[in-house]
Amino acid sequence: MAVTELAPNTGSNLEARLRQIGAERYHDKHPFHALMRDGKLTKAQVQAWALNRYYYQSRIPIKDSVMMSRLVDADLRRIWSQRVIDHDGTREGEGGLRKWLHLCQGLGLDRDYVVSEAGVLPATKFAVDAYVTFVRDKPLIEAIASSLTELFSPGIIRERVTSMLAQYDFVDEDMLIYFKGRMTQAPRDADFALDYVVRHATTPELEDSVCQALVFKTNVLWSQLDALYFAYVEPRLPPPDAFVPQA
Amino acid sequence: MAVTELAPNTGSNLEARLRQIGAERYHDKHPFHALMRDGKLTKAQVQAWALNRYYYQSRIPIKDSVMMSRLVDADLRRIWSQRVIDHDGTREGEGGLRKWLHLCQGLGLDRDYVVSEAGVLPATKFAVDAYVTFVRDKPLIEAIASSLTELFSPGIIRERVTSMLAQYDFVDEDMLIYFKGRMTQAPRDADFALDYVVRHATTPELEDSVCQALVFKTNVLWSQLDALYFAYVEPRLPPPDAFVPQA
Repeated sequence: MAVTELAPNTGSNLEARLRQIGAERYHDKHPFHALMRDGKLTKAQVQAWALNRYYYQSRIPIKDSVMMSRLVDADLRRIWSQRVIDHDGTREGEGGLRKWLHLCQGLGLDRDYVVSEAGVLPATKFAVDAYVTFVRDKPLIEAIASSLTELFSPGIIRERVTSMLAQYDFVDEDMLIYFKGRMTQAPRDADFALDYVVRHATTPELEDSVCQALVFKTNVLWSQLDALYFAYVEPRLPPPDAFVPQA
Repeated sequence: MAVTELAPNTGSNLEARLRQIGAERYHDKHPFHALMRDGKLTKAQVQAWALNRYYYQSRIPIKDSVMMSRLVDADLRRIWSQRVIDHDGTREGEGGLRKWLHLCQGLGLDRDYVVSEAGVLPATKFAVDAYVTFVRDKPLIEAIASSLTELFSPGIIRERVTSMLAQYDFVDEDMLIYFKGRMTQAPRDADFALDYVVRHATTPELEDSVCQALVFKTNVLWSQLDALYFAYVEPRLPPPDAFVPQA
């Protein structure tokens, strides 16, 4: 369908539905995030979170490369390529991935161990890989819609950064440099994706599929925190080979 | 490589390595299975297990259809097709899937609800879908090797059936009819797959990849029980939309 088609009545309803999904299902509502926000995590648990989150971050530019491979329109592809650049940087030593490793090292994790992915929970890999597969296989509007958790990330970032700096003496501002860039990147990306889905969801079925795509993505994020909680909080049963924090 | 190539010294070592992986990582070692075996699950927890396991079972014939699509040799493909027939039956009302639904209904679950997959844990879907993707994308020897958990299934089935019949008054022999067929199907399938990988793993690297494929599959099974334990045993935090057993 042409990029300029509008669905006037649908537009505002769809955005409201998407924001409601975020309000109910975004992982700022997860018990693990509540512990983090309330200063109740141990350093070991924060390490486990950062280690696993590295796997997610590492697959974002892969997911976005898959997306680029699905965009025949060079203008759309150019716009989407900024997401890959945000994570990989424009030269060695730059980019979001590098900043996430900086956080991991600041927490006392060995850089090579993190990059090896050896200690990552299988459940993390399954959830993250499902996201990449979704973007590869689903209709384009759903693939784009699955990125819309970025609508809600500035809120959780603000909460996370504030509470971590206030309550964890092993975390300083320099370690959290990753999140600074996200405060401008995420809204820019989310605005683009939201505009795209609102303009292209011209039937109730398409609107439903867009909402289901966002629900899917919230499940990807939620299940990762479930797995972390199970392995490192309660009942504290990490699977074989998973990262075991030093006492 | 020709089907008749042998790797004499390697053969016995590889099988021993694979059996050791099973001894350490197969899900008969999982805490959830221990609870089931020891008669410590509630009916609600057994319902949740059966409901989620239905998703896994439903994707086995899909996984095996993917495998068939990768076998250019008609003889191999015909042999592998038996696995699909085992689950789908040769006519309506037959087959492993039907028998699993019979177990679900015997446990008091609504058949349509089970088939809708609406209550399945996202983590279950991510793990199971990862298995289907593995079989689609990995080198053929690894895809075949990932089925080798069937080497260990007769043992867990015997343990599960015996203990369930002895300790759960809501389970009877008719409900467990699914497992009867598996006691002959699994060894037949496992023998074929084991023979294939032993004959084709003609280098240390191939042997390692076969072992990694089996480890991957044990992670697929283990993480499903992790997710069940987290949602329905301890800390009992099912994600949004997941099956909530009636009191």
